Amino acid sequence: MIQQTTTRVLASEVAEHAGGFVRLNGWLHRQRVLKHVTFLIVRDRSGTAQVVLKEPVALPEETPVAVTGTVSANPQAPGGAELVDAEVTALSGPAEAPPFELWRPTAPEAGLATILDNAPVALRHPHLRAPLEISAASAAGFRAALDGLGFTEVHTPKVTASATESGANVFGLDWFGKRAFLAQSPQFYKQAMVGVFERVYEVGPVFRAEPSDTARHLAQYTSLDAELGFVADHRDVMAVLREALVGMVASVRERAGEAVRRVGARLPEVPAEIPSVHFAEALEMLGRPATEIDLAPADERELGAWALREHGSEFLFVTGYPMAKRPFYTHPDPARPAHSNSFDLLFRGLELVTGGQRLHRYEEYLAALAARGEPVEPYAGYLRAFAHGMPPHGGFALGLERWTARVVGAENVRSAVAFPRDLHRLTP
Amino acid sequence: MIQQTTTRVLASEVAEHAGGFVRLNGWLHRQRVLKHVTFLIVRDRSGTAQVVLKEPVALPEETPVAVTGTVSANPQAPGGAELVDAEVTALSGPAEAPPFELWRPTAPEAGLATILDNAPVALRHPHLRAPLEISAASAAGFRAALDGLGFTEVHTPKVTASATESGANVFGLDWFGKRAFLAQSPQFYKQAMVGVFERVYEVGPVFRAEPSDTARHLAQYTSLDAELGFVADHRDVMAVLREALVGMVASVRERAGEAVRRVGARLPEVPAEIPSVHFAEALEMLGRPATEIDLAPADERELGAWALREHGSEFLFVTGYPMAKRPFYTHPDPARPAHSNSFDLLFRGLELVTGGQRLHRYEEYLAALAARGEPVEPYAGYLRAFAHGMPPHGGFALGLERWTARVVGAENVRSAVAFPRDLHRLTP
Repeated sequence: MIQQTTTRVLASEVAEHAGGFVRLNGWLHRQRVLKHVTFLIVRDRSGTAQVVLKEPVALPEETPVAVTGTVSANPQAPGGAELVDAEVTALSGPAEAPPFELWRPTAPEAGLATILDNAPVALRHPHLRAPLEISAASAAGFRAALDGLGFTEVHTPKVTASATESGANVFGLDWFGKRAFLAQSPQFYKQAMVGVFERVYEVGPVFRAEPSDTARHLAQYTSLDAELGFVADHRDVMAVLREALVGMVASVRERAGEAVRRVGARLPEVPAEIPSVHFAEALEMLGRPATEIDLAPADERELGAWALREHGSEFLFVTGYPMAKRPFYTHPDPARPAHSNSFDLLFRGLELVTGGQRLHRYEEYLAALAARGEPVEPYAGYLRAFAHGMPPHGGFALGLERWTARVVGAENVRSAVAFPRDLHRLTP
Repeated sequence: MIQQTTTRVLASEVAEHAGGFVRLNGWLHRQRVLKHVTFLIVRDRSGTAQVVLKEPVALPEETPVAVTGTVSANPQAPGGAELVDAEVTALSGPAEAPPFELWRPTAPEAGLATILDNAPVALRHPHLRAPLEISAASAAGFRAALDGLGFTEVHTPKVTASATESGANVFGLDWFGKRAFLAQSPQFYKQAMVGVFERVYEVGPVFRAEPSDTARHLAQYTSLDAELGFVADHRDVMAVLREALVGMVASVRERAGEAVRRVGARLPEVPAEIPSVHFAEALEMLGRPATEIDLAPADERELGAWALREHGSEFLFVTGYPMAKRPFYTHPDPARPAHSNSFDLLFRGLELVTGGQRLHRYEEYLAALAARGEPVEPYAGYLRAFAHGMPPHGGFALGLERWTARVVGAENVRSAVAFPRDLHRLTP
């Protein structure tokens, strides 16, 4: 039985302990039995380390183990050192063989559905877990950037009495006998909190009951939301978004650099000024009628290619979306009232962020609801914040999984989340 | 019309700009009209600043304003400086009078229900928003401490196919025609992710349909969850929890020190070793029969008082809760199998954290479910992680609102959340 008192070192730290007697903890990643010697590869959260044994161990791969031994420098070993004179103890029963060979250096060739069905074990593969490391680093960078700009983190209700934001595509539930709904966004709450903290953000789950089964939709995803007061217009919001992106990229580089290299992900450069095109100009460039009110995915790809070609940027703001296509709280462009002070941010030809300036006067809200033929009552609680004085403000929402999928070059957003939820998937 | 191009300074920075011409943005907090002079107090996210006017402005309190003026040192003014020769512009329509006088230095005397009904405007009062600042700083400290210990942040599903953890007190919903449930905790997911990252944490909403309307229960709250592998037993988990608490207190001191002072909150000292008492000893100390399997709130208060008296600690671990009272995944104490390798952490006489070592062998899970007469099927997806090799592990969950309420000395946990959700409250 191995002494737990021997100092544990991580696989990535083994070489620093040459000559020392150490303990590794991890999973038996792979055993290679040669004629006179056996090599064990042990995997822990930091990577893998090599262990040299005289005899094979009777343990299957994925069994958690403790290994003690003396660290010996060996330029041939991964990391430049290995454990010799080693003793191995299983820390659990022998593991059942996983449905994939996790020890293979490349990601399992199984289809995405099989990988997702077996997520608890599939994600142990260093290639499949990499997007989650990048995702965690991205969220940390988002928070750090906004903390640095005077934002306060908030936690808002995920269950609401009214399906206020759009009405459609909302999950209903029973709340102690009352009809309630899962929040599609923290929109109204973050706006109210601008009245309290001026600048707020939230990193949390949002829920969309969209019956679309596409590679870019999830029914639960993690939304990086920000909202700020005392803006001149949507361009102040875009400037903050740019800072957030800079923070996210820096954090991924710093905290998940190894994961980026492992999967050959390519981090974007965030230009000092992200190029921007007005919606009306975009339609012209695309040769589409000026009466269109939205862009199709193919349009976004074409605009993304244009921004890369003309501006060397993988990011492109499209501003001034038609008011008809934006939610009722959107602030119009005072100079072109059919267009809005709003934007989408395209990243590598895909919509990543939606944002803009919001209405801030109480009467404007009443008028906007009346113009859309919507009753005031479901919004009454929300509108109180505006009656009591709200400054010009705006914000944005960025889908964390979309961002991560785009960074690692995954075709499906489901590769960027541990346990996706969609039209068909409610387990594991 | 005020030039937005004049540099904006925060209220807390005014004194640094003596002699300069600056812009303030904020809410008209209070206007005091004297015979020959009018004082405006402007409130922004950093605090308040004084503005001197020759004539009163015809704007009600809470109207968002921009104020330009020259900074003049004045030892009598709050902060030691004020704006003179000032010009005031409203940034929105005149604000409706709030239901509370937000300018009063002490918190509104209205009842909690009235405050919560009017949260979007009530939280603007610096005393009422302080708990949220402390809460945000606490979550940041939790993450920083665990990041430093090699943890990875995860985001797990908030909707699940089975009401697995307890069966009772769970919210049901319709998920594209299937029966689904709101997650009561990320328990099973964080355990599965130990197999991937060894050490994980999540800061996110959890949902409990407890029909109890008490001062310490919320139907949605923010859970600070952590889980770690390769532990010897629950004491390794307790050591990590202590580090997390140290990080939380340090972060509150650093990031929300002003809010702490504002409401006279008292930050706890986290002892180098938090005192600990076994459940059986606790019963003896309380003079309760050895057959009891749980502690009542009054017991927790008495134990908390004992820890403070005997150990000078506001924290107390109670370990070894009876297995009968803990969920099926709890690891028994090998030396006393009727007791568990689990703990609660009491903070100022209230249960703040529950945690412990979990079962890690697949067969143990099958046996534990059989012993409780529970079917395996709802847990099948969850149990796959254990079949494929999981190390000894454990974790804990800390309720953010309970922590914050205790730090600020609030009697009701609802004072520590912007928009609480409970048996009766689903708005605003």
